[in-house]
This record gives sequence, structure tokens and C-alpha cells, in this order.
Amino acid sequence: MQVAGVDIGGTTTKVGVLGDKFESVSFSTPHSSDLLIGSIAEAITELSYGEQIAGVGVGCPGAVDLNGEVKFMPNLQIKGFNVAKLLSERLKTKVVVTNDANAAALGECERGGFTDAVMLTLGTGVGSGIVIGGKIYEGPLGSAAELGHMIICADGRKCGCGMSGCLEAYASASALIKRTVEAMNLHKNSFMWELCPDINEVDGKVAFEAEKLSDKAAAEIIAEYVKFLGIGIINICNIFRPQAIIIGGGVSNQGENLLARVREFCKKSHYGYRFAPQPQILKARLGSNAGLYGAIAMIKYKVEENLL
Amino acid sequence: MQVAGVDIGGTTTKVGVLGDKFESVSFSTPHSSDLLIGSIAEAITELSYGEQIAGVGVGCPGAVDLNGEVKFMPNLQIKGFNVAKLLSERLKTKVVVTNDANAAALGECERGGFTDAVMLTLGTGVGSGIVIGGKIYEGPLGSAAELGHMIICADGRKCGCGMSGCLEAYASASALIKRTVEAMNLHKNSFMWELCPDINEVDGKVAFEAEKLSDKAAAEIIAEYVKFLGIGIINICNIFRPQAIIIGGGVSNQGENLLARVREFCKKSHYGYRFAPQPQILKARLGSNAGLYGAIAMIKYKVEENLL
Repeated sequence: MQVAGVDIGGTTTKVGVLGDKFESVSFSTPHSSDLLIGSIAEAITELSYGEQIAGVGVGCPGAVDLNGEVKFMPNLQIKGFNVAKLLSERLKTKVVVTNDANAAALGECERGGFTDAVMLTLGTGVGSGIVIGGKIYEGPLGSAAELGHMIICADGRKCGCGMSGCLEAYASASALIKRTVEAMNLHKNSFMWELCPDINEVDGKVAFEAEKLSDKAAAEIIAEYVKFLGIGIINICNIFRPQAIIIGGGVSNQGENLLARVREFCKKSHYGYRFAPQPQILKARLGSNAGLYGAIAMIKYKVEENLL
Repeated sequence: MQVAGVDIGGTTTKVGVLGDKFESVSFSTPHSSDLLIGSIAEAITELSYGEQIAGVGVGCPGAVDLNGEVKFMPNLQIKGFNVAKLLSERLKTKVVVTNDANAAALGECERGGFTDAVMLTLGTGVGSGIVIGGKIYEGPLGSAAELGHMIICADGRKCGCGMSGCLEAYASASALIKRTVEAMNLHKNSFMWELCPDINEVDGKVAFEAEKLSDKAAAEIIAEYVKFLGIGIINICNIFRPQAIIIGGGVSNQGENLLARVREFCKKSHYGYRFAPQPQILKARLGSNAGLYGAIAMIKYKVEENLL
């Protein structure tokens, strides 16, 4: 049996086919739905040597409904097209589409040996995926697992979604960069200026690096970042009590320097902490391959359990 | 096939047996574990006319681990005893124990025809239960579904659990009563004093009643209560996107006066609200019977699907 996985990204699209062996290719994501579907179909046909594919799993940015209809894809000029239907017609096989963060969560679970875990991706936004019993949880109506838009601070910072106080407004790389810029403007003699003389070039690493040089303003930014990320994670612990909470995205590259502090925060904050089992808090391991691996894992269990 | 359900409450314990028909009894909860187990076993034996029971489901207040060990039962002087083991030895059948809020959530789901829903119980605390695919979600490690201890307001009001800003510190009946007392002390000419001349007698209804009399201080309390409960509910929508969010407990008796306003708040606050499917927000229907019905529903699917 052969299955195919696809990870559609804002910049790059990856396609892989798993049969007796695993082969994959990647290409720049075309900015038209026709070209996109065509390129994916061609890649799958090539990688499968024209042999029958039992199903295709697709991870896709933005909002996807339970029928595989993409409502909108941020960063791409594509909206309102049915990936599942179009790809299925081309390849004469079943196609299942999910949000890319869901696919990444499943990929990380497979890699880490977890059946029940939650993944947070700390990037431009805060993406998330929930895996329960080895399967992606999308909710009975779809569109679930928007943990980045969990409100952790009523009337707090404005979020891009229109609400206030969402986890994303505190724990995304963008939020970290915004706070760094604010602090740099307030503290003209901070080490952060030496590390990044052009304030338009600030990234999520500046405050972490300056903190290592004992910069006080940077230390405050990081302490605050750890606290709010910690609140998001402790909420996930108290709600799901999963085996693991997996942290991915650019900010996760801080590794133990970030995670050890988040663990410390959470240890003190579990509801019923003396009794409650404590989920592991871990760095994601698959990097940009998580989505492709997860898309394949998803279609594999859908085929094996006759869920198509 | 006969199955039995038990709902252990701080005051009353209910026992029911479902076979060709359904019969139940209730009695005051004994304050010793021996007496409690004995009374439950006797009641089940009686209701089943001594015939074989395929399994017993138990809903129990407090923290219960996946082995049926009760870590502690608030309000009762009982802690650290294994309900599942003790009851199983007495009745020579399988026993499954879950938290009472989980059982109530499943009971309400069965009653409402939902397979995927979240229940919040607004009482002394904020209890919660999550039902996914017709089954109670307890997490792979147990102790999940503590939605009352989801932090919605970082550095906010102190919660009984030791943390700050938990939903329970804003949306429980106790929180509502606390705010009412504070407001009454601030506003000596509020209608609330006429409705409740003794400040030690304030309950969760006083502010709602005074608001109907156009009392301004009461209206502020209720607006704030709706907002914070609404934030908790919108978080549940964005995380789980369930078919329904079911509201029980004393405060839910305000019915549409409360729920219509919460729905209004949520309608504006969904992540991707133009695209996101909107869960129903409903009042619980089974009252104090939800736990017993849920305990029976739980053991029924465990027996039917060979999960014991």
C-alpha cells in the first residue's frame, strides 16, 4: 500500500509518498490554485511511479472545513477552493485535508512516540494542534484547536484576530519582537542596541541574546515572555493533561534556556499539583518536516481504519 | 444485561441499576469509606435483585486517578481510598470511577443527543467535563478537564486553588456572591439591600433580581459576570469547537436571562467568526440527576465496547 502526504506552505510545498520506501520532493508554492493542484498531482504521480495511491493527506495553512474546502490561506492569494475535491479528481483517490498545525502536531507525536499531546508553534502567530488517541482532534464541527486564541488576559493586549488578551498576543515571535522594540525605545543604553543597531531588524533572538549579557531590560522581556507562555501551557495541562506539550516554531530554538524556565513555572502552577500527573514539556524535533510527516501519518490511519 | 451507576455527592449518594427497566435509590452519604462502600454495595444488590451486574460506573467528587483511587474528596472526611477496588471486591464485577463533573457532562450529552460537548457547572466552584466522540475525556494521565482552573486573567483575582485569574474566581456562584457583597458594602442604597437585608445571606440570585429592578450596582455585577463567563466559553469554543457547551449548577437557573447575553458576547468573539461553526450554548436539563445518568452511560459504553 502507498499513501501520499502534502504540506502546503506559504513559501514551499512538500510532497512525499510512503510505500516500501519514502520519497519526497519540494517546490515553491504556486500562487494560483490551478497551478498548485497541478504541481501536487504531478509530484505524487511521479513519486508513486504511476501506481495506485490508497489516499492523500494534506496539511494546509489557514482555515479548512471538514469537507476539505479551504476558506482562506493567509500569505497566499488563494481562497475558497476545495483542495480535497480537486486533488481527488486528478488522482482518482481519497484526499483528506487538515490545518498545517494539526498535521505538524501529529508528525511530532509520531516522532516522539506520543498518542496524546498538544503542540504549540511559536512563530508569526501561535499555531496549535491537538492529538488525542493518536488522531488529530479537529472538533465535531471542524476548526477546533485554536489555542493561540485562548484568552489568558482579559482586556489585555490587542490580538491580530480582533480580540484582546489571546495567548498569541503574548507568546508569538511577533509579540516578543514587539515587546523588544518597545523596550529598546525605552532603554537607549541597552545591550540590545549593540546586538541589533537597526530597530527594523529586531527578531525573536535579540532579547534572549542580550539577557545572556546581563542586560536588565532584556531580562524583563524574557521573564514576562516565560510567564505568559507558561500560563498558556498550564492551561493546556489543566484542560487536557496530555502526555506531552511540544513547543515548535522559531522561538523554540532557544531550547532549554526557554523550556527549563517554563517547566519551573508550570511545576508550581498545576491544579492539584501534588496529585496531578505532570505532562512533559518538550521541544519539537522535526522542524519544517513535521507537517509532511503528519499529513502522511493522518492518511495512514484513515486508510488503515477505513475512515475515508 | 444489567449495569449500575453511582453518584457520590457531598450530601447525597444516588444509586441506579439499568436492565430491562431503570430503578434508583438515594441516601445520605456516610462519612466513612467503609460505610459508604457498604451502603452502595447493598443498594446495588437490592436494585439488581441479586442478579449479575456487567459493571458499575461511579461519579465521585474530587480527584480520582485512572485506577479508581480517590485522592481526596472535598466536603467529605474521606481521602486516599480506592473506590473501584473496594466496590469491585464486594460486588465481584468491574467498577469504573470518574470525577462527578465528567459523569454529569456525559449524562447531559446523552440527554441532549450530543456526542461532543463541554459542560460547565457554576456552583461553589466551576466544575467541568469534556465529552469527545460520546466518551468522557479524562486525558491519557487522568485528571484532565479542569476548565475551572483555566487562567483567563493573568495576575487577576485569587482562586481557591492557589493560582490567580482562574475562570472559577470569576464565574463560580461563590465569585458572584463575593462580588455582590463587595458591591453592597460600596452601595448602601442599592436595591440589593432590600432584597437581602442580611449580608451574610447573600446568594447568587440577589444581583440578578436587583438588576431586574434597574439597580445600577447590580447591573454592573451581572455585566462583569457575563463577560468573564463569556471569555471562558469562547475559549472552549476556540479550543474544542464542540457541538454544545452546556451550563449547569445554581447560576444556570437564571436561564435565558444569562445565556442569551453570553451567546451575544460569544457571537462577536469567535476566532475566525465569519467562518467558524458556532457551538450551541445551552442550559443543563437533568439537574441533580446528571451524574447518575452519566455514570450509567459511561459503564454502558465501557461494557459494550469491551473497555473494562
